[in-house]
Amino acid sequence: MSKRIAGPEIERLIQLLAKVPGLGPRSARRAALQLIKKKEQLLSPLAAAMAEAVDAVRICSNCGNVDTCDPCTVCTDPRRDGATIIVVEDVADLWALERAGAMNARYHVLGGTLSPLDGIGPDELNIKALIDRVAGGGVSELILAVNATVEGQTTAHYITDQLSGLEVRVTRLAHGVPVGGELDYLDEGTLSAALKSRTAF
Amino acid sequence: MSKRIAGPEIERLIQLLAKVPGLGPRSARRAALQLIKKKEQLLSPLAAAMAEAVDAVRICSNCGNVDTCDPCTVCTDPRRDGATIIVVEDVADLWALERAGAMNARYHVLGGTLSPLDGIGPDELNIKALIDRVAGGGVSELILAVNATVEGQTTAHYITDQLSGLEVRVTRLAHGVPVGGELDYLDEGTLSAALKSRTAF
Repeated sequence: MSKRIAGPEIERLIQLLAKVPGLGPRSARRAALQLIKKKEQLLSPLAAAMAEAVDAVRICSNCGNVDTCDPCTVCTDPRRDGATIIVVEDVADLWALERAGAMNARYHVLGGTLSPLDGIGPDELNIKALIDRVAGGGVSELILAVNATVEGQTTAHYITDQLSGLEVRVTRLAHGVPVGGELDYLDEGTLSAALKSRTAF
Repeated sequence: MSKRIAGPEIERLIQLLAKVPGLGPRSARRAALQLIKKKEQLLSPLAAAMAEAVDAVRICSNCGNVDTCDPCTVCTDPRRDGATIIVVEDVADLWALERAGAMNARYHVLGGTLSPLDGIGPDELNIKALIDRVAGGGVSELILAVNATVEGQTTAHYITDQLSGLEVRVTRLAHGVPVGGELDYLDEGTLSAALKSRTAF
């Protein structure tokens, strides 16, 4: 804004809201104004919820998940099959797979992918703990649910190498046509993968 | 989420973030995760900024603006021309006009428009205070910068009626082609207004 038209507390709120992923400078202003208008119903509870989250959030020392307890809810859930571990790059991937609700397994969050150019080697990722979990026994399958990118696949190969000598079945997600997807819009790589992995109708 | 995969503090943060204008349930999850990851740089300062805003925010008793002082920064700014008052529906409109930076006037925020169907009559809006401001003297022009909607125009007419007998010039925003706009995409109403109000080249 060219001139100061609001107090420093409001300006600061807008500045910080603009850094929230999904909000830009323009929507941050709109959000700030709406939050201020709904002070009692929204701004105040949100401030409290954030302050509580700051205090409560923990990184699970077992799997790398984000939660408010350590070990996390997923690791301590007795109804989950501990023999299957789904390896993901990020907590967001864990949440996405949980929304799909297809597996009742446990997880291991790597915290990224190998990327030598960015200085991210095996020690920067949560890989050592994964190998230890598998070596500790009781794990029969490791599903490498990393992204289908070069970095993701490199990381998957590295992990497979590290697991050599350990008794565990290593699998990866199927490649193919997304459910509801139109062939016309798909890239050649996906189409050839879908053709190669075709299944009986 | 089908199963509980994160602690109640995180779930509550996501729920409240989803109510922030501009964020939906999906982007609220992404935002929550990013906020948690940047706990020290973003989540903690944002929680503090929100708590401060809750305490600091005031509605200006003079013009209805939102600020952290009463009277607000705009009303107390000695460099502004107090003889011109721009009447807006909402604080967001005040901010938008300030970003344009075209006028150095003061404002009056109505807090909405007349809408009998929604039970919003003159008493629900900040109109009485506006008439009092004008009746108090020292105001030579009132610019009705309400939205170009039926409700906005109805409100403008009502205000003009209430001002009868008072010595003040009442103006409204020009209708016309938006700067950078393409004629092909404009509605007939705007185009005829722009033609009628054509100016010398």
